[in-house]
Formats: sequence, C-alpha cells, structure tokens
Amino acid sequence: MTVRRGPFITLEGIDGCGKSTQAARLARWLQERGYSVERTFEPGGWEGGRTLRSLVLEGEISDPDTELLIFLADRSGHLASVIRPALEAGQAVLCERYSDSTWAYQAGGRGVPPEKLRGLMELCGFPEPDLTVFLKISPAAAAERLVKRGKADRIEAGGLAFMARVAGAYADLAKAHPGRIITVPAEGPEETVALQIRREVERALKNYFEVPR
Amino acid sequence: MTVRRGPFITLEGIDGCGKSTQAARLARWLQERGYSVERTFEPGGWEGGRTLRSLVLEGEISDPDTELLIFLADRSGHLASVIRPALEAGQAVLCERYSDSTWAYQAGGRGVPPEKLRGLMELCGFPEPDLTVFLKISPAAAAERLVKRGKADRIEAGGLAFMARVAGAYADLAKAHPGRIITVPAEGPEETVALQIRREVERALKNYFEVPR
Repeated sequence: MTVRRGPFITLEGIDGCGKSTQAARLARWLQERGYSVERTFEPGGWEGGRTLRSLVLEGEISDPDTELLIFLADRSGHLASVIRPALEAGQAVLCERYSDSTWAYQAGGRGVPPEKLRGLMELCGFPEPDLTVFLKISPAAAAERLVKRGKADRIEAGGLAFMARVAGAYADLAKAHPGRIITVPAEGPEETVALQIRREVERALKNYFEVPR
Repeated sequence: MTVRRGPFITLEGIDGCGKSTQAARLARWLQERGYSVERTFEPGGWEGGRTLRSLVLEGEISDPDTELLIFLADRSGHLASVIRPALEAGQAVLCERYSDSTWAYQAGGRGVPPEKLRGLMELCGFPEPDLTVFLKISPAAAAERLVKRGKADRIEAGGLAFMARVAGAYADLAKAHPGRIITVPAEGPEETVALQIRREVERALKNYFEVPR
C-alpha cells in the first residue's frame, strides 16, 4: 500500500460533541486509505503537556490571561515535539482541539480581548490546519450526553451560559473561515456523523488524496 | 511605626551573583524602615508556578519558544496572585528575577528574536518595576561561587559561553534603562554589596520613602 503525505486536520466543538469518538473513526478510515496517522489532542498531547493540562483543567488557575498563556505554551510544545515532526515525516495529523478552541474558550468564553489573542497567536507563529471539522451540537444536547457519560462535572465547571458562549464563538469562527472549517451537525447517530465527516474530508482534501508521498 | 506604601523592586543577574543573599538583606532593611515586604521570586513564586518552574528548570522543555511561553505564563500568574495583590495592599515587593531575566536568558541566551519577545511582553501588559538592582559579576567569578556552593550543575546546564551571553545582555539592558536599572558590582564582600544596594535604593526611591501610606 502506498503511504501518502498527510494533511493536518483538527476536530473542534464543545465538550460532549463527540470529538474523540469521531477522531478514532476518522483515523481508522485514513489508515485504511494508506495514511500513517498521528492522532493527538490539546491540551496535553505531549510530554511536558500533561503537566500543563492538569494545571489548567484541575482548576488551579483562575486568571484568564495566565490560563491563555499556558494553553499557548502547551500548543508550542505540542507543535515542536509532536505535530511538526509527524507532518515532516509525511504523517497525517488528527488533532482534537487546536487554535479554534483557544478562540472559542478563551476569547468567546472567558472574555480575553480578540485583538490580544490575535496578536499573541501571530507572534507565536502557529501553523493553520489544512482542515478543521467543527462538530456542531447544541449546549443542551451536549450536556445531556455528558450527564449520560457521568461527566456532569464538566458542565458544572463552566455552566450552560459559558457553554452557550463557546458554542456561539465556534459558529462565528466557522462563518469567518468557510474554506478551512467544515461544519458537521453532530446530534445524529455516530455512524451518520462519521459518514458525513468522511465525505467532507474527502472533498476538502482532494489534493492530498491524489498526491502520493 | 508608620507602614509605608511600597515600591516594586526586582533583583537581577546571572546565577551566582548573590541575588537571594542580597534580597534577604534588603528585605530586612526595608522592614526596619517601616515597610511590609513581600519577598518573592521567578520562576515559580506562586502556587501554580511551582509546577511551571519544575517544567522549565528540570530540563523537560528544549524548545526555546515553549520555554519562553511558560516563563510568561508563570509571570502572569505570579502578578495576578502575588505581586499585584501585595502592591495594592501597600506592601513593598522584592522579586528575584522578573522581565529582565526573560530578556537576558531567552533573547540574549537562547536567541529568541527581540522583536518577538517585545511584542509578547507588550500584549501581556506586565508592569515595569519601579527599580531594578542588577548585580554585576563576571561569569568566571559567578561560576567559582556556584562550584563552592556545590551547584556546578547550573554551569554545566548552560555552559560558560551561555552565561557570558546572558551577562552581556544584562549589561546592555542596564545601559538601555539607566533610570530604572541600577548596576551594583557584586564581586566584593557581601556587606559591601549590601551597603551599596541600600544607598542606591534609598536614592532612587526617594519619592517612595517620603510618602507615608
């Protein structure tokens, strides 16, 4: 089987939208098509990142600016040690959460000024993904899933109003970047969502799929 | 005794220059003059900071950009949880290492482009200290002290060439900010250095010393 040079794909959406489930399915599908896939995530998808992840997710940090800088440090280390090496080796990178999460959560959710975030991101020089799959789900439906999975604490942590702000920011991002972000309704059955993701990925990445490594 | 509103003073210089020793002496002297003093340090002088400090100082992070962002996150959290509250409560803050360390080590030592660092610092909006005491010592003399203290590993970690670049960057900073940074030769006896620091601090902060809280 020919191994193909892979694209950089991110999956985005609020907690409970099904990112991990769909990332696993998309990874398998890409592998079946001849890709070597690096499946990863933010925050925390690299060695130093586990420490940073626990700092921001276990509630030790309350200051939004500090939280933002930790997320950026995490991304910088993740890019240097996981994402860039994988892309340079020709792998496809499938990453749950990336810069759009920072826009949605830190600017949309926590109120960090967008111009500040834009300036910091530009100075950091983070690369854009080739494609972003935004799994769109209502905060109410996402909350219901989280409760079923016994992860209601994640709703409590931010509150439904916070989740609604984040969901709104994601929708705005999708509108602002129609070429890069594809929106997939994520409330239907897992298999239906997976099929639509595959169709959209195949269409959006036609160039990748036609160029062997 | 009248408690006075305190200034924000930082101590800077390469490892082995005597920052901690002189910070302890200066803190006692300020207390004797009626100040309530918050003595602190970077990286790591706050709760979340201990984790960040171990990440950057225990060699887990090799990428200079990531290291820089962790130092900035540390400063942001330190400001939010220690420095700003202390200053707002009228305390004097005495901090070993602060933004000049980032200039000297990350730009001077590790080669992060100055324009990138300047942009990030401006967006972070970190306040300038009222006064910075730069303890000037040659890399050779500092190395000798570190060896005597059994901390030769700190020289090994960076190498003498690295220490020389950092020392050069500190000297450049002192030239560029003659109003804020006072340079104190730090190779003499502890007591002599302490006396000169007190004299310089008293002169530089005349306004502070005359305004009761």
